[in-house]
Amino acid sequence: MAKPDPARLSIDSYPHHDVIQTRFQDIDMLGHINNVAMAALFETGRVRFNRMMGLMRRQGHRWLIANVDINYLAEGKMADVQMGTGIGRIGTRSWSILAAAFQDGGCIATCDTVVVMEQQDGQLALPADFRADLERWVVT
Amino acid sequence: MAKPDPARLSIDSYPHHDVIQTRFQDIDMLGHINNVAMAALFETGRVRFNRMMGLMRRQGHRWLIANVDINYLAEGKMADVQMGTGIGRIGTRSWSILAAAFQDGGCIATCDTVVVMEQQDGQLALPADFRADLERWVVT
Amino acid sequence: MAKPDPARLSIDSYPHHDVIQTRFQDIDMLGHINNVAMAALFETGRVRFNRMMGLMRRQGHRWLIANVDINYLAEGKMADVQMGTGIGRIGTRSWSILAAAFQDGGCIATCDTVVVMEQQDGQLALPADFRADLERWVVT
Amino acid sequence: MAKPDPARLSIDSYPHHDVIQTRFQDIDMLGHINNVAMAALFETGRVRFNRMMGLMRRQGHRWLIANVDINYLAEGKMADVQMGTGIGRIGTRSWSILAAAFQDGGCIATCDTVVVMEQQDGQLALPADFRADLERWVVT
Repeated sequence: MAKPDPARLSIDSYPHHDVIQTRFQDIDMLGHINNVAMAALFETGRVRFNRMMGLMRRQGHRWLIANVDINYLAEGKMADVQMGTGIGRIGTRSWSILAAAFQDGGCIATCDTVVVMEQQDGQLALPADFRADLERWVVT
Repeated sequence: MAKPDPARLSIDSYPHHDVIQTRFQDIDMLGHINNVAMAALFETGRVRFNRMMGLMRRQGHRWLIANVDINYLAEGKMADVQMGTGIGRIGTRSWSILAAAFQDGGCIATCDTVVVMEQQDGQLALPADFRADLERWVVT
Repeated sequence: MAKPDPARLSIDSYPHHDVIQTRFQDIDMLGHINNVAMAALFETGRVRFNRMMGLMRRQGHRWLIANVDINYLAEGKMADVQMGTGIGRIGTRSWSILAAAFQDGGCIATCDTVVVMEQQDGQLALPADFRADLERWVVT
Repeated sequence: MAKPDPARLSIDSYPHHDVIQTRFQDIDMLGHINNVAMAALFETGRVRFNRMMGLMRRQGHRWLIANVDINYLAEGKMADVQMGTGIGRIGTRSWSILAAAFQDGGCIATCDTVVVMEQQDGQLALPADFRADLERWVVT
């Protein structure tokens, strides 16, 4: 566990912005957003980001989540979360999605997700146009 | 994201063993355990481990989850999960809980959680007896 | 289980309207909103309705959910839910919250919740001003 | 909302018994099992009951949950739930599953679920052998 890069704590670093609602269910015994609920918020943000990118439309490919790494930075509450999302490292067959959740202007958590494309027809690398789509959304 | 150490993939490496039920709710569109549901299984395993260690009984201290890092290694199904849990690195004010989930003898996911003790009375370090408790449960 | 009254299937019957997001987690193996996830959407709608009514601000009272009755009318999808909410029957110490969830203009589920005020200081009935607050939001 | 029949509050009334784990996530701000979490426990109990009955094996039929009605009777805690389950009313194309959850010997909630078989090949009624399977598990 390394401390997140300061750039990760500003929503301006992320090319895609979204608002995710929290639920009563998300709140733990201390009145804060539970850790697993935060993972659910990031999952929903990721799916909405993928939809917006048109990633869901690609046929003939299947990807898997290989790793999710969440830093919990401050306590969240039952109120909307502003979420910044973008692409991190792009590898031969994998890429990472970087996200951060904000409330009242402060970053409450960051999430790094590693996604791996499954080889289905002997393909050894991400298709060039898919890689180009990812590059358009890189976190700066 | 580094590949997990091979020792992490054997339940024998973990000093504490538990069985955690899965739920219908945990299953995604493809019939597998959803990523967030896996985080919930690990959370429950962690709370049960902390209870067993007597960690919940300590008054005057409060700890926070600082980081959760999950490797997804194989697809899970709606069936009991065998969970191995133990302590990893012990720092001055923090420690890590290492866990792995198994189905049919195979490791389907590992989870590393970094826990930080909040300073409440100017304490700068984990109490010696608490540290000794943690050391009793280190992953080998 | 009685079929819901046709008036319950029109959002215009409800005095309070809200929009609740769905999550990837809500979707079951068939791609539809899971039954329990629907219960979570209604719970969140209920808490937001109670907040809007100022119900959360009342000190010295505590209420309990005694019954939740959900009719599942059509399959939902991962998209925003329009929710209509209002008050149903008001009893001596209890009241009901009536809600309905809509997607694409069709009602996908209705939810009736019975709430009971706990007696805390020997009170046998809802305070008059509280009852007046409830009456302002009755479903027509 | 009618008060549950006293017979519903005894686990001996139910032909099938199961133990369902609770999770840290199930616990609300007051330290009790959340209402929606209780719905999730009942759903899992129902799926396990259906599996045990062999209901999941039947091809060519599909059933839908039409109604779920839960009475919340006492506060639950993070500990195993004993669950009694059986069949209630059997209609032409529908049936009900009756369940109750117990902790420390007391009933904390009851759940009635109405299931409807979809007509897929013009069938107007439950097949005779299926109805016979259901009758074997009726709540007494």
